[in-house]
Amino acid sequence: MAHYPRAALRSVLNPRSIALVGASENPNKIGGRPLLYLSKFGYKGRVYPINPKRKDAQGFRCFESLAALPEAPEVAIVAVPDDLAVQAVDDCAARGVKVAIVMASGFGETADPAAKAKEARMAERARASGMCVVGPNSQGLANMATGAILSFSTMFLETEAKDGPIGVISQSGAMSVVPYALLRQRGLGVRYASATGNDCDVTVGELACVMAEDPELKLLLMYLETIRDPAPLEEAARIACGRGLPLIALKSGRTPAGQTAAQSHTGALANEDRVVEAFLARHGIWRARDTRELVDAAELYLKGWKPKGRRLVVVSNSGATCVQAADAATQHDLPVARLAQETREGLARILPSFATTTNPVDITAALLTNSGLFGQILPVIARDPAADAFLIGIPVAGQGYDVDAFASDSAVFARRTGKPIVMAVPQASIAARFKAQGLTVFTTESEAVAALAQYLSHMDLMQRMHALPPSAPPMPRRATGETRMLNEADSLAILQRHAIPVVEHRLCYSVEEAESAMAELGVPLAVKACSADVPHKSELGLVRLGVRDVEALHTAFGDFDRTLRLTNARREGVLLARMVRGQRELMIGAHLDPVFGPVVVIGDGGKYVEAMPDVQLLLPPFSSDDVRAALGRLRIAPLLEGVRGEPPLDVDAFCQVAVTVGVMMAFAESGVASVDLNPVIVGARGEGCTVVDALVVEERAQR
Amino acid sequence: MAHYPRAALRSVLNPRSIALVGASENPNKIGGRPLLYLSKFGYKGRVYPINPKRKDAQGFRCFESLAALPEAPEVAIVAVPDDLAVQAVDDCAARGVKVAIVMASGFGETADPAAKAKEARMAERARASGMCVVGPNSQGLANMATGAILSFSTMFLETEAKDGPIGVISQSGAMSVVPYALLRQRGLGVRYASATGNDCDVTVGELACVMAEDPELKLLLMYLETIRDPAPLEEAARIACGRGLPLIALKSGRTPAGQTAAQSHTGALANEDRVVEAFLARHGIWRARDTRELVDAAELYLKGWKPKGRRLVVVSNSGATCVQAADAATQHDLPVARLAQETREGLARILPSFATTTNPVDITAALLTNSGLFGQILPVIARDPAADAFLIGIPVAGQGYDVDAFASDSAVFARRTGKPIVMAVPQASIAARFKAQGLTVFTTESEAVAALAQYLSHMDLMQRMHALPPSAPPMPRRATGETRMLNEADSLAILQRHAIPVVEHRLCYSVEEAESAMAELGVPLAVKACSADVPHKSELGLVRLGVRDVEALHTAFGDFDRTLRLTNARREGVLLARMVRGQRELMIGAHLDPVFGPVVVIGDGGKYVEAMPDVQLLLPPFSSDDVRAALGRLRIAPLLEGVRGEPPLDVDAFCQVAVTVGVMMAFAESGVASVDLNPVIVGARGEGCTVVDALVVEERAQR
Repeated sequence: MAHYPRAALRSVLNPRSIALVGASENPNKIGGRPLLYLSKFGYKGRVYPINPKRKDAQGFRCFESLAALPEAPEVAIVAVPDDLAVQAVDDCAARGVKVAIVMASGFGETADPAAKAKEARMAERARASGMCVVGPNSQGLANMATGAILSFSTMFLETEAKDGPIGVISQSGAMSVVPYALLRQRGLGVRYASATGNDCDVTVGELACVMAEDPELKLLLMYLETIRDPAPLEEAARIACGRGLPLIALKSGRTPAGQTAAQSHTGALANEDRVVEAFLARHGIWRARDTRELVDAAELYLKGWKPKGRRLVVVSNSGATCVQAADAATQHDLPVARLAQETREGLARILPSFATTTNPVDITAALLTNSGLFGQILPVIARDPAADAFLIGIPVAGQGYDVDAFASDSAVFARRTGKPIVMAVPQASIAARFKAQGLTVFTTESEAVAALAQYLSHMDLMQRMHALPPSAPPMPRRATGETRMLNEADSLAILQRHAIPVVEHRLCYSVEEAESAMAELGVPLAVKACSADVPHKSELGLVRLGVRDVEALHTAFGDFDRTLRLTNARREGVLLARMVRGQRELMIGAHLDPVFGPVVVIGDGGKYVEAMPDVQLLLPPFSSDDVRAALGRLRIAPLLEGVRGEPPLDVDAFCQVAVTVGVMMAFAESGVASVDLNPVIVGARGEGCTVVDALVVEERAQR
Repeated sequence: MAHYPRAALRSVLNPRSIALVGASENPNKIGGRPLLYLSKFGYKGRVYPINPKRKDAQGFRCFESLAALPEAPEVAIVAVPDDLAVQAVDDCAARGVKVAIVMASGFGETADPAAKAKEARMAERARASGMCVVGPNSQGLANMATGAILSFSTMFLETEAKDGPIGVISQSGAMSVVPYALLRQRGLGVRYASATGNDCDVTVGELACVMAEDPELKLLLMYLETIRDPAPLEEAARIACGRGLPLIALKSGRTPAGQTAAQSHTGALANEDRVVEAFLARHGIWRARDTRELVDAAELYLKGWKPKGRRLVVVSNSGATCVQAADAATQHDLPVARLAQETREGLARILPSFATTTNPVDITAALLTNSGLFGQILPVIARDPAADAFLIGIPVAGQGYDVDAFASDSAVFARRTGKPIVMAVPQASIAARFKAQGLTVFTTESEAVAALAQYLSHMDLMQRMHALPPSAPPMPRRATGETRMLNEADSLAILQRHAIPVVEHRLCYSVEEAESAMAELGVPLAVKACSADVPHKSELGLVRLGVRDVEALHTAFGDFDRTLRLTNARREGVLLARMVRGQRELMIGAHLDPVFGPVVVIGDGGKYVEAMPDVQLLLPPFSSDDVRAALGRLRIAPLLEGVRGEPPLDVDAFCQVAVTVGVMMAFAESGVASVDLNPVIVGARGEGCTVVDALVVEERAQR
């Protein structure tokens, strides 16, 4: 972040003066649209169209060049193509422009190395002269509060604008305005709808930082196809967390096919998706899997609720809505609240005998006969202490029902409880009447529950972030230079230096040494060849388990020597280790991600780790509690507490080892580039855990 | 089905005469709505309102009683409450009515046993006199082709009616009309929107049978909260399969909370959900998890496409749409098609250099400059042999774009290829122009891909149904009478009688017998106590593995005897069995579901089957291929072919055993109520598999 003057970035959101290089009279041209928008949306600052061939454009006086302007404009839009754009950027820098927004395409997003290099040089020159560049290939930025619509997107012609507490910041042009349009369809106001394009200089993360500083923003949505540098996103998350602003990110390229598409369309670097997932969660950023998840829950974030829990109460005039809402609630891990006896008695006094007074509360079709039932039961339910959130489902209403009473009763109820409430109303005309009362309405129960669950989970995630001590963003450690694989004995030695419990073992260079080691360690033993050239020893027959006598020891020595000679591998001794018994084999791995730095992987161990992975990722720094939570998300989680009469595992001991691995990975001084500890044999509670096989890769150059 | 005169059920869909008991002048009363609808929707048959207090109602002449009618009406609607309804049903039966539709509630859907009994008696009397009853608690039936709207649902006042090739049949009133409303919102015509209520006599399945006979129907949607008898649904599936009519079912109560809600609202029997899942798949019925999945793909079913595969081609003017569509395609198991070299060259000749000619095809924002690009590239793509289906995404368009050209170009393209095609267009106004050209438009890529994937998977499922030999529906076997658990020796003997390979074993009653059995079988051995009173032997220490000498045998005999005496369990000998080695422990279970009959469960074996189930269900009859497909859906599927240098498993042998268990369960003669074979030790290919532990429960009464 160091080289980005935060003030310059603030000015691009709210510039006092704007130059437009390549200004056009035609409002449907890239160079014409911003002028149209600056008039149409009432921008109050100074506008300087640059076009040497015209006296004026769309009613604005034109200037011949940047040099001819009466002042250095804060922001310049570059709407000329190719090399003209490169020249314009240089001119902007020379003229003292703070931020240039480059709309021209054909740069880093193509497969052409020359175009990529041109982009890099352009950005480099701008940086050197202290100017920021947004783009190239940017559709532009929009601020509905000031009318500073520095964008050529057609969407601003097609959608009625309304300022509001939501920001959208995206690498893609389309994905800056599609969420905008969908939010507007829902009636929500949106302040920012901005696209950064190729992120050659200023990235989504940096603009997210300045948007997150806007005190009127209540929700910030991001669309990302690639993350080259996590630091600005971490900084944005830190700012957002500090003021309770929720961030939701749609990071596409979740799948290999998506990553291939992203690479061929924008030259995007492929991020390892499970690391992205862990990174976003680590910073309290909710990850949306698609556009729906990006926008569907948005309205809930604007209500200012302080949710206390996840227990849901469902009220409907249809049993089917009740059943489906209960199904959806379970699917999304929202418990169906158990109503108090008092509440049930209160409901029984109001509802007909064939209605249901347990939760979900089914008013039944009796509502058609008596529209008053609805308004009478809501206050009774509102008082129940078990109710954390509400779903009201009205699948059918209209003529014969007092819909306006339902809507105002619901609105009063929502205001009184102050608790999260969603509605499911499939009829558009009926939904509109609830929306008019300020209620959040979805078409189906499952959509309403999904949005509510996302909101509650995200609030909970943010709460946990708040609980963390505030810390300066750590300088992430990245892979550097050459690496070398260590043999098992050296690997175990490194772990021991970090106080990680490893199996008791001896490295022997002769059969005689081995015999005395056997006497010392006792039998049975694991006997393995030690060689930094053989990462997968068992596949070459270089591991013997349950060795009990000197004879077997001799055989192993002979066999190992022969195999290592045949495969031309270094012979670095033979390792004798105690056979360790425990309850379960788990694993811990760690590596340096090229973008996100240290990553620790914990999970079920054994030989099928690759074929049937059951793992969770952790990004250092993390605590024992974080490891415990990650273990709880594993498929094998039920086994940790002991099943079928087995004792519980020593989870504490395992968590401690994982934390230590995290610390070791976080500091460059350890020199460790990656570790693969599998199995880590975990004993019953109190018995500890032991690393019995280790593969460490060191980062230092070959010694 | 035997007692349902199919002709009577046909007449309820299209009656020539209708009586309405409890006719009202007020069109917002339950007894007034049907009269309103019969006028409004132009019903041409004879209508007989019954109301002794009125001369006429809503312009129809009223009759004093059923007896006073000039003819026996084909169908009678019973819109009077409680005991009056019961009396009316009796009167209908006496008057020769074919089908009575009972709208009154307060019967089987309540918790009151007296109300349930009243319903049962009413249905019984009707059946005895040859009359069918729909309901009680039915919102009624609607046929838009004839205007026979025998329903009081408000939805028909609120939604503009249009006849069409879709039927909706539901136990719930709301869920008969909510799908109707959502389909109508999409502009689709719907013929039937009918609710059966409590299904005391005629069920959803039986009405589905007669709807499925309608030659103009192209899609039939069902909503179910409980399945009491699978036979009518099987029959409906058979009829539908015979003429290629797709059935989609939303069966709610998927979760324990949903089942509890269903039970308290409608007194619904809780079906085991994984059996429901297997049952629907077995009969080619697509299972929708929620209302969206029930209706969202509907339009695709009406197109008459003959899909050949799942390879998707994506075309968009936005890279972000391309990336997100590729992500969604992968998630839904649609491969991104690899375009032919010829196609790529053709695209390169048309598109600008910075566009992408691989699939997904990104036209880029160049479309704003040249609207013709779209129409030019579609024919090139249409010719590619790898394209099985298409997604066209237009996230942004409007002023500056020739949207009408896009729409007509897309429509021509869709007609020419004849292949499945979906569109993703988030702007409502732009979407409308594509819809007007007959294209199927979704808001987001992920919704479009999800619907397409559902449609393709369902077509594939139906294709596989067609490949099955036509067979009369088998009489399902149900649990009857008492059961008794067998000891392990008797369990193994039953399996052997069915030619299932079991471990070689001897049942011994004395140490002497055991010693000679040991000599015969060789060591090591598994030694287990045999007692029908102890299903979980190992938890009581009644299993010794790896027994190698007579001493251990003696100890086991002594220990077992003591333990069984202490626990008061029958002592039925000691089982000596060979220790079997193999590649993997799998399991096979089977039981009789109270509704669906025999169910076979296959999956990963071992001691964590309950704690971490990895299983699939099969409903007999099924083939080895079905078992193989089910194995392929297991989490452990990657291991079956062998990983990390292991040989592949003998899947053939395992499939054969599973098929045999299925046959054994299907026939009552076997007397087997349930089996639990865990582990079934499966060897490497060619080595077979062996049941080493078995628990059989017999159905016969105690001998």
